[in-house]
Amino acid sequence: MPIHEECGIFGIYDPQGNCARTVYYGLYALQHRGQESCGIAAINNRELSFHKDVGLVGEVFDPETLNRLNGTMAVGHVRYATTGGTQRENAQPLTLNYVKGTLAVAHNGNLVNTKQLRTTFEYRGAIFQTTTDSELIAYAIAQERLRCDSVEEAVCQAVKGLRGAYSLLVMSPQKLIAVRDPWGFRPLCMGRRGDAVIFASESCALNAVGAQFEREVEPGEIVVVEGGTVTSIRENCESATSHMCIFEYIYFARPDSVICGQSVHEARRRAGRLLAKAYPVEADVVIGVPDSGLDAAMGYAEEAGIPYGIGLIKNRYIGRTFITPGQQSREQAVRIKLGPLKSCVDGKRVIMIDDSIVRGTTSRQIVSLLREAGACEVHMRSSAPPFIAPCFFGTDIPDKENLIACRYSVEEIRELIGADSLGFLSLEDLHKIAPDATCGFCDGCFTGRYPISV
Amino acid sequence: MPIHEECGIFGIYDPQGNCARTVYYGLYALQHRGQESCGIAAINNRELSFHKDVGLVGEVFDPETLNRLNGTMAVGHVRYATTGGTQRENAQPLTLNYVKGTLAVAHNGNLVNTKQLRTTFEYRGAIFQTTTDSELIAYAIAQERLRCDSVEEAVCQAVKGLRGAYSLLVMSPQKLIAVRDPWGFRPLCMGRRGDAVIFASESCALNAVGAQFEREVEPGEIVVVEGGTVTSIRENCESATSHMCIFEYIYFARPDSVICGQSVHEARRRAGRLLAKAYPVEADVVIGVPDSGLDAAMGYAEEAGIPYGIGLIKNRYIGRTFITPGQQSREQAVRIKLGPLKSCVDGKRVIMIDDSIVRGTTSRQIVSLLREAGACEVHMRSSAPPFIAPCFFGTDIPDKENLIACRYSVEEIRELIGADSLGFLSLEDLHKIAPDATCGFCDGCFTGRYPISV
Amino acid sequence: MPIHEECGIFGIYDPQGNCARTVYYGLYALQHRGQESCGIAAINNRELSFHKDVGLVGEVFDPETLNRLNGTMAVGHVRYATTGGTQRENAQPLTLNYVKGTLAVAHNGNLVNTKQLRTTFEYRGAIFQTTTDSELIAYAIAQERLRCDSVEEAVCQAVKGLRGAYSLLVMSPQKLIAVRDPWGFRPLCMGRRGDAVIFASESCALNAVGAQFEREVEPGEIVVVEGGTVTSIRENCESATSHMCIFEYIYFARPDSVICGQSVHEARRRAGRLLAKAYPVEADVVIGVPDSGLDAAMGYAEEAGIPYGIGLIKNRYIGRTFITPGQQSREQAVRIKLGPLKSCVDGKRVIMIDDSIVRGTTSRQIVSLLREAGACEVHMRSSAPPFIAPCFFGTDIPDKENLIACRYSVEEIRELIGADSLGFLSLEDLHKIAPDATCGFCDGCFTGRYPISV
Amino acid sequence: MPIHEECGIFGIYDPQGNCARTVYYGLYALQHRGQESCGIAAINNRELSFHKDVGLVGEVFDPETLNRLNGTMAVGHVRYATTGGTQRENAQPLTLNYVKGTLAVAHNGNLVNTKQLRTTFEYRGAIFQTTTDSELIAYAIAQERLRCDSVEEAVCQAVKGLRGAYSLLVMSPQKLIAVRDPWGFRPLCMGRRGDAVIFASESCALNAVGAQFEREVEPGEIVVVEGGTVTSIRENCESATSHMCIFEYIYFARPDSVICGQSVHEARRRAGRLLAKAYPVEADVVIGVPDSGLDAAMGYAEEAGIPYGIGLIKNRYIGRTFITPGQQSREQAVRIKLGPLKSCVDGKRVIMIDDSIVRGTTSRQIVSLLREAGACEVHMRSSAPPFIAPCFFGTDIPDKENLIACRYSVEEIRELIGADSLGFLSLEDLHKIAPDATCGFCDGCFTGRYPISV
Repeated sequence: MPIHEECGIFGIYDPQGNCARTVYYGLYALQHRGQESCGIAAINNRELSFHKDVGLVGEVFDPETLNRLNGTMAVGHVRYATTGGTQRENAQPLTLNYVKGTLAVAHNGNLVNTKQLRTTFEYRGAIFQTTTDSELIAYAIAQERLRCDSVEEAVCQAVKGLRGAYSLLVMSPQKLIAVRDPWGFRPLCMGRRGDAVIFASESCALNAVGAQFEREVEPGEIVVVEGGTVTSIRENCESATSHMCIFEYIYFARPDSVICGQSVHEARRRAGRLLAKAYPVEADVVIGVPDSGLDAAMGYAEEAGIPYGIGLIKNRYIGRTFITPGQQSREQAVRIKLGPLKSCVDGKRVIMIDDSIVRGTTSRQIVSLLREAGACEVHMRSSAPPFIAPCFFGTDIPDKENLIACRYSVEEIRELIGADSLGFLSLEDLHKIAPDATCGFCDGCFTGRYPISV
Repeated sequence: MPIHEECGIFGIYDPQGNCARTVYYGLYALQHRGQESCGIAAINNRELSFHKDVGLVGEVFDPETLNRLNGTMAVGHVRYATTGGTQRENAQPLTLNYVKGTLAVAHNGNLVNTKQLRTTFEYRGAIFQTTTDSELIAYAIAQERLRCDSVEEAVCQAVKGLRGAYSLLVMSPQKLIAVRDPWGFRPLCMGRRGDAVIFASESCALNAVGAQFEREVEPGEIVVVEGGTVTSIRENCESATSHMCIFEYIYFARPDSVICGQSVHEARRRAGRLLAKAYPVEADVVIGVPDSGLDAAMGYAEEAGIPYGIGLIKNRYIGRTFITPGQQSREQAVRIKLGPLKSCVDGKRVIMIDDSIVRGTTSRQIVSLLREAGACEVHMRSSAPPFIAPCFFGTDIPDKENLIACRYSVEEIRELIGADSLGFLSLEDLHKIAPDATCGFCDGCFTGRYPISV
Repeated sequence: MPIHEECGIFGIYDPQGNCARTVYYGLYALQHRGQESCGIAAINNRELSFHKDVGLVGEVFDPETLNRLNGTMAVGHVRYATTGGTQRENAQPLTLNYVKGTLAVAHNGNLVNTKQLRTTFEYRGAIFQTTTDSELIAYAIAQERLRCDSVEEAVCQAVKGLRGAYSLLVMSPQKLIAVRDPWGFRPLCMGRRGDAVIFASESCALNAVGAQFEREVEPGEIVVVEGGTVTSIRENCESATSHMCIFEYIYFARPDSVICGQSVHEARRRAGRLLAKAYPVEADVVIGVPDSGLDAAMGYAEEAGIPYGIGLIKNRYIGRTFITPGQQSREQAVRIKLGPLKSCVDGKRVIMIDDSIVRGTTSRQIVSLLREAGACEVHMRSSAPPFIAPCFFGTDIPDKENLIACRYSVEEIRELIGADSLGFLSLEDLHKIAPDATCGFCDGCFTGRYPISV
Repeated sequence: MPIHEECGIFGIYDPQGNCARTVYYGLYALQHRGQESCGIAAINNRELSFHKDVGLVGEVFDPETLNRLNGTMAVGHVRYATTGGTQRENAQPLTLNYVKGTLAVAHNGNLVNTKQLRTTFEYRGAIFQTTTDSELIAYAIAQERLRCDSVEEAVCQAVKGLRGAYSLLVMSPQKLIAVRDPWGFRPLCMGRRGDAVIFASESCALNAVGAQFEREVEPGEIVVVEGGTVTSIRENCESATSHMCIFEYIYFARPDSVICGQSVHEARRRAGRLLAKAYPVEADVVIGVPDSGLDAAMGYAEEAGIPYGIGLIKNRYIGRTFITPGQQSREQAVRIKLGPLKSCVDGKRVIMIDDSIVRGTTSRQIVSLLREAGACEVHMRSSAPPFIAPCFFGTDIPDKENLIACRYSVEEIRELIGADSLGFLSLEDLHKIAPDATCGFCDGCFTGRYPISV
């Protein structure tokens, strides 16, 4: 509930066509990564067409539009806008014409040298019509293309100038190119379905379209699909050191995704287990805040030998158009979003697990809700450590003054949210949650230490 | 997933006003009972205003409309249309003028003597502009009102002619009247919030608006709220015999609702326990089909001593506007709706619990999905008995030829869906799932025996 | 600009089908009679389907909807709502079920015994879901149908109880019935196109669909079309005395319509001629306020021997969604709606003709606009007499306190609007404008004398 | 009816604010110049905001949006898209960031060296997100700005590279800049309202907002408004030779506009007079095809001494959403758009004037409509010469194979459209229609000779 990431991307080459429709289903599976705008660009007989707008995938696309976009290659994007109003202009994929024809660019992540890049291009006469990194990346590619013999070479040269997080799909009339930054901040995997080659932010989207997971795109790697042939450019891999955003495991990703070899569900469950070891307490039931606290709650229950229970029911219909109760009754909003299951918590000592605590407001309301429903004790556990620093790589973490952990000690937070006890996953334990992962991690939002100087 | 009920209703008298807004939040909590149309009617200074349309609560109402509807009484309705196209005309509450002024009528249930009632009224010159039972009920009230001294007396006389299921809210310029049929087919409860009196189809809606549950409206009872005074007409209660739809516990109601004293969540969990006793099998994990199979799966796991697991992740964004894959790839739809959690089922013997089996198609696809994800055995359990008969009281059960249990034996069904074993909750066990319930049950869809001859 | 009428109706029987589409084009031709809501009901193989909503014909209907409505009979309606907000419920045709099946009713006009009829029906137990006369008429038909052998006989008996204006189309599964009140307040004509029989409020709609005008439906007449056979019931014609709304000629109707034998354009032109004779003045140019003042201006110019000119250009894009300038600049609104043609009026003595003067506000602004554009004199002529009384038969005339002619003398009005001279068509001349008309007239809004006691 | 131009522009500096609202009304007055998309960009405290979309001004803007855009400078645009589908991306004003901050660009016209410019920029690494000339112009300005000391100087240098038609508004955070190409192809005038300075494509938009016409922006001139000070850069005026599109007078502009000193209405009237002299014929009435043929018809009637009449009534409700009759009945479309006034033409010899003949289809249908309505002779006159060549400067003239005058002689055309006689305005007379104009003309579409080699 508290933290938003900026994007999900999905791309496909399929000689059998119908690619926009496959992207549509892929984006449905990635909708949790961004709900403010979305878009699909497709190539049919080397011609680019596209559609994008503000709204959910199900709102932006209708059958007629999908049919119009048909083609043998397509890329799609779901977006969460972190700054300013929701601008339709910023919906992606970015589509453009440049010296060699058309390009579509879909980007997940956040660059840290945006300002410098922008200035550089502006001093060459560039104009910017959006505030997205995609437009910067497109300029970089377009300018390198003047010197390079192929679009993939231009991409390879262009990304050398980018610092920060970028999982990228670039589509030219004949090629589909997937790129991941050398730090590997954001996930990007590759799959197959018959002759089709597919890229997706998370493996759950491969499953959704009936594709087989093949492998991760590696940090720094550039994968080029052309007419069914897949080649890899690894020139930028040399300097690569893997720093996957560890919050992907805790909150962003769907539990049925596997990222860098690690099941997201299992990572969360393990976080629960580690919490149980670190902060044991006598209790009658362990419950999770749906949806992202459920897996950790199961892990905690297993480790602690305390029954797992369903203590909170989430209203599935709260969306963009929900009219929040006014100032005086803001406390009421959580009641509409979460219904306490009295028979589960009444008269019980309850351990309640949430994925993280940002401002503390929601946690306080949930604790209060559970007490109202009869819980005699409420012990809160957070499967993330306290947030103490901003993220520069695509996660929308509030200012320090809004981060409760920047202003209060754990004991003070416990008192503020009204819990009987409170425990955060430790940094040490954090690095144990994903033992199957074949990557290193970025934990900057919990430590203030980043893989790139910012 | 498979079966739809027709309606949810919510009404409030609150001297502090803002009633339409409270109904709005109440309907959000009842949205699972009907997603095709909704509406709110409000009384402000004895003046009726209303708004209703096709769509979800969040789509039909905007802040401006809600503000316009403000008042000290309001009733709302969410509807699932069982027959024909989704007609805007059939959206409720029905609002009307009659001999004594205005009325608003919101109905949950289904009458069985519709045709006879319609004919009777038509032979008195009536015209019908909708195909709803609400319009019939309104005529009955309007005609009785000619002979009766008050609207509540007219309601009391009118409902004597109705046979079937009706949980009803009737609102006149000064009174809010709640009615339940003498068979008590559909739930209707009453709560308080300060001076406000509230009626709702389910108690979860009381929680959502911060109200305290007070009691059920009893079968045959008529509760009249006028200026804060609550009175009860029990004239029709004498003949009452309680036959609550037992499928409310298994599927319709939200797990955090308590119906007739019985927690819905606990009833489902108990169903799981009973399944475990009746159909034990050696296995490694018990999973539920989200959302309505999860509680039973927990119960099964507890009883069987087999670990409970999360084996399927539900896509939360599939809604009315989802474009289903075409004929050739309909099998694919389930992939987009449900993602298998490989780490949970891979190499495991899996017990999979769903709330019921209607056509068998979805079950077959889920079994296949789990096998693909590595499950070496899939044992399916249904927390409802086989459907063998229609419902005449407001549940949209397919024709017999579409009910798999009408055409095949359990063993044949098992084979059709591809499970290693299959067990349905027995009728005997069905009646054990709600021991706390203070009511009797209708199990007509599982037995073909109904409380009323139809 | 100032006065609105409530409705236009169009109906067709065509054995070749495609009737909804023909009605669609017919309604386009009648859109000037009502812009707030519209609807079409069609019969296909005895099955009724319909679509109606708030908005213009072009907004409410799309190709898909039109195709769905296809059939061999159809009726349509455009509506201007005179009272209260624009209620979607009041959109017509009214469609209903009654003792003998389905009916669709489309009504143009206004009844004067509404209250009495409503009470009568309410005391028989009726409920009213709209505030339209159509619903009353439907009840009357439904109740008579119980005693009558056919729907047309029921219509014949039902309308005997109606007092006021009604041009009516009633459609049963097999019959299309056109009715006009015995006073003949509102127009209704009949045409043919091959085997098709068509009814329309105005003959311009017959032209629009390529049909030949056949004749007026006579006051009191009921025309029944069944399977291509046209019969006439003239039982109510005996008492009929024709009182066509004379304002139809002056303002409502389209100039290319012929009503009761009289060309609307010619009637307006004649009004201009009569004004020229009654109020001669030396001037350089005669201009009309577009669109309804243009014809009279031509007539004035011809009679006076003064050049006709185009002095004001109307903005064709001002519609429902136009955001009017705020309080302080309301005067500005007329500038956006009407652009003065400087070369036509600069330095000229201008005679400006409008169809009528209601509040005087617009006239004042137009006079001021013309002076700004250089007119040295502005002489205003109104092709209607002063409004001094309400209309009870379907024209939306403001309250007496808002009628400038109820509060001020002609000389005072002249001063208020800032004209150099002012002349209204006299009542005597009013009755000379339609010499070809085969009907009598109602001039109640100009005299306070009505054909029916009200 | 037949020919479309691409754009209208409107800009204002007003220290009193509310500029977006003024632009809104200005665009309403220019809506006839483009109906497919529109937009407004505003500067408030040096901050740029904007809104643009596909649709009419009244559809795209609501009060909330207008209020949000408020500011002390604003520019707006209405667009007719000549090629491809209606792309939202191409809606204007174009808004962008470049080396010196923000710019908004609104363009009316068409460049002829687009391809060369595009290639030049692409070879410097430019990317293009639209297919508009505005984006090219923006690049040109952005690149010149690197070398120039001010935005106006950059504009001055940038437009030196442009060949073709451009009436341009450029808005920086502090300056509003109006530009006209040295050939003066498209109109652009300047007005005042108190302290406000206003630019508009046509003077009718100045009238609409209560402003006084001041003067034309001259061919090649750049007018700079900064904080109320107006300065003029005339560096590009030297080479200027005025070639105003003469079809502006005949068809595009609103009759109440004055362009380069010449009233549009008077120009059309004069065209009618010249036609009367060139092609006299005995007849009973002269009618115009509304709206653009009416003025010429009045002129013809005056010159010929034959009565002017209203012979065709235009349906005012046909818009974007009109569903055209299918293939078999396309002939019917004209009936819905135009209603013949029988009393005007029946038994008469009719002279019918239209602004031009493009494909001939519509003319043929109108002639047929008039004959059906009883006209015994129909003599057609076109107030434009025959179209024989494309326009490269912003008018959407069909390919030669679709221009009837490219394939047939006048006599053949007469026969094809079924008229008794036919006359086109001669080229010689064409140049006489605007004697008050202070400019020269481009008549390329009638001669194939253009002011710029193309």
